[in-house]
Amino acid sequence: MTSVLLTALDRVLPADRITSDPDVLRALSSDEAEWAPVGAATAAVRARAESEVQAAVRVAAELGTPIVARGAGTGLSGGANAVDGCLLLDLSRMNAVVQINPDDLTCVVQPGVVNNDLKAAVAEHGLWYPPDPASAPWSTIGGNTATNAGGLCCLKYGVTRDYVLGLRAVVGGPAGYGTAVWLGRRTAKGVAGYDIAGLMVGSEGTLGVITEITLRLRPAPVGVPRTIVGAFTTLVDAGRAVALVTRLGLTPSALELLDRTCLNAARDWKNLDVEADAAVLLLARVDTPGDSGEAEAAAVADAFERSGALWAALSTDDVEAEALFEARRLAYPALERLGPVLTEDICVPRSKVPDMLAAIERIAAEHRVQIATIAHAGDGNLHPLMLSEPGDDAARIRAQQAFEQMLDAAIGFGGTVTAEHGVGLLKRGGLRRELDPGSLLLQQAIKDALDPRHLFNPGKVL
Amino acid sequence: MTSVLLTALDRVLPADRITSDPDVLRALSSDEAEWAPVGAATAAVRARAESEVQAAVRVAAELGTPIVARGAGTGLSGGANAVDGCLLLDLSRMNAVVQINPDDLTCVVQPGVVNNDLKAAVAEHGLWYPPDPASAPWSTIGGNTATNAGGLCCLKYGVTRDYVLGLRAVVGGPAGYGTAVWLGRRTAKGVAGYDIAGLMVGSEGTLGVITEITLRLRPAPVGVPRTIVGAFTTLVDAGRAVALVTRLGLTPSALELLDRTCLNAARDWKNLDVEADAAVLLLARVDTPGDSGEAEAAAVADAFERSGALWAALSTDDVEAEALFEARRLAYPALERLGPVLTEDICVPRSKVPDMLAAIERIAAEHRVQIATIAHAGDGNLHPLMLSEPGDDAARIRAQQAFEQMLDAAIGFGGTVTAEHGVGLLKRGGLRRELDPGSLLLQQAIKDALDPRHLFNPGKVL
Repeated sequence: MTSVLLTALDRVLPADRITSDPDVLRALSSDEAEWAPVGAATAAVRARAESEVQAAVRVAAELGTPIVARGAGTGLSGGANAVDGCLLLDLSRMNAVVQINPDDLTCVVQPGVVNNDLKAAVAEHGLWYPPDPASAPWSTIGGNTATNAGGLCCLKYGVTRDYVLGLRAVVGGPAGYGTAVWLGRRTAKGVAGYDIAGLMVGSEGTLGVITEITLRLRPAPVGVPRTIVGAFTTLVDAGRAVALVTRLGLTPSALELLDRTCLNAARDWKNLDVEADAAVLLLARVDTPGDSGEAEAAAVADAFERSGALWAALSTDDVEAEALFEARRLAYPALERLGPVLTEDICVPRSKVPDMLAAIERIAAEHRVQIATIAHAGDGNLHPLMLSEPGDDAARIRAQQAFEQMLDAAIGFGGTVTAEHGVGLLKRGGLRRELDPGSLLLQQAIKDALDPRHLFNPGKVL
Repeated sequence: MTSVLLTALDRVLPADRITSDPDVLRALSSDEAEWAPVGAATAAVRARAESEVQAAVRVAAELGTPIVARGAGTGLSGGANAVDGCLLLDLSRMNAVVQINPDDLTCVVQPGVVNNDLKAAVAEHGLWYPPDPASAPWSTIGGNTATNAGGLCCLKYGVTRDYVLGLRAVVGGPAGYGTAVWLGRRTAKGVAGYDIAGLMVGSEGTLGVITEITLRLRPAPVGVPRTIVGAFTTLVDAGRAVALVTRLGLTPSALELLDRTCLNAARDWKNLDVEADAAVLLLARVDTPGDSGEAEAAAVADAFERSGALWAALSTDDVEAEALFEARRLAYPALERLGPVLTEDICVPRSKVPDMLAAIERIAAEHRVQIATIAHAGDGNLHPLMLSEPGDDAARIRAQQAFEQMLDAAIGFGGTVTAEHGVGLLKRGGLRRELDPGSLLLQQAIKDALDPRHLFNPGKVL
């Protein structure tokens, strides 16, 4: 049976852009969030141009069909999950790097460009796009923008938001559903009107569909960064080292925490040559060139030792250092292979990192949940991962309870329920507990103003 | 005659907070924008606490009175100018630094804190608040936030927006006029809901009144920066040097342009020991420490020479270097002493700096307008200043025509009509010409959603 939606899409789009094949729809209907509800989509459009996104949004609006946009589907909060009866808008084929402007330190890309592909493209011009979520080999710039993705180097170089100068989007509301608009600027600075481009960043597809992004770039880094490794007996000791690094005014380009469970999972999966002789490792990178970088690296190692590290060392072996960072990046998929993983993404003020790590251990013990912890520790952004056996419902429920309690603990420390993964479906309760009630009303007012019919990714975030 | 507004304010606020003295009202009714219309205010409230701001906003809302908030009044676009019948809300007495958190690299301030006072307060803790508009000795953090102020060091360290983590504001609309809300976060990262704190930054008091700001800080810089001075025969040569510095991937912490008119005005006013032996100077600062900084400074000097500088030199004399930067900071008030100054604040993509400088000279000649030019040249942010004699109406009209034409030229180069001063009253026409019509509709929808009665600084920005 051909649905009304398919017929209407067929009238305005080439046939090969539209699908209602159940297997394809299933593959496009969820991201990587564990246990987030997935609705039944009616159709998918795999757009190749902004005009096709406009056509699809117009058709959906005419029929009152919800629109769920997606990139690579690597999200961890359910933000890209289908809602019942929706049109899935797959943007992964809009993957052109439209322009690279070395003289302006900017580039223009379509949303489906994969993060690492962009990095490679701009590197050829001596340029660098810093944001580096662990999903960088797979995730798209559109998805990174929609969730305001972070990564390892945020500590020194900021998040996606800090690189988005402007964007094009297909929006609704006052401009009419299906209108394509340019938002933001192409210049280093600019304050012409409200920062709606900034508002779109991190809005998880709930205010419109991003079709092009203008990004700020940096000159390629010079020299080889130094890696400092510290081994600790407990999470809390490692947390103290992180707090001390901040207090001393040191700014490594990454300061990552990785526990033995994560390290072993990555090692076993990819035969990485890394050893786990301690419960917790801290990995720091210092990219300041020259003498200053050497001094900074030594100060980081010293801070590790003063905080009770079993040992701390400057890695003199680039292969070993790279293997450790590779283990960090692969920890999540490596654990996911072994069973369902519920991922936290809390962030606390830096001084509260030791307290939050202690709270995580306490909550996990209380609910008898096995956890593995990775963290962008230098930012206070912690990712305790709750592991369970496939099909163990009791374990799932305990993990979900621990998950919510960790959100509350983070809020209690002045933190947030999501640093970089987004609210999606999994953090909606936490969001309501975190935000000031007045702020929630403003959020809702903005949604109502820009998407009055609630067609863009309804039920997500708010 | 006591107005209804005064009577109502008197009921809810201590008497010494309220004034309708014509001289005081006049002093509080405008910022430093030349030739921007100034309305007649009915009363002013000099608030000392958020609760007093709430009370004043509630009273104004009951009576349908427009509310114009202000800090030090150093704005250059008329954003803080009174509108007829308004209540002026002076926040300069809410000037407490509420908290400094060295362990979290954050601080919390009231809006009336003067930028340089904050810098001094955090320096005592080994910390640094980078945004440095030339008005830093007088302008307030609240005003800096409302306009998303920039400054000299934006080039490397970003603008006010990059330092605002969260804020408190007294808002209207869905939460009810007079509601105080907390927006944003206290953590290094965070994506919990729409970035309304970011939306408030640069909204020029049109969406609510900011009553407290939580700022990110940096560790204090180490070592003494190096200053490189380049002397050029023409603006366009200097522009070429700026473009080359960018293309070479050099990142000075400041890259300022200053023409002879500006330099002389500052020198004559403050007896600064600076010489103007060339038409245009470029001042660069490199704060990278150690050997790398030395190499970077040499590369900047080399780029100046390759672009046709008469001479380029690393300043070995800190006193001389500081005098030059002092001249840069004082250029605007020094010129303002001599007569009306109409200030541009355009920004173009960096590669277009030479073209834009050429266009400025052409437009000034065409309209027979005397210009002086200062620029945050490294950001592409140019401030041609149009000078005229007091009372010369024909000159005023020619300057205003040149002003609008420069805005159009900037838009034509892919630039913006305002980089850091805000839209206020003077750039409303330019804003409409710059923004996509669809984007303007979204801007208006956001204003309508958050301030449905248009009580907050009506007629500004949009």
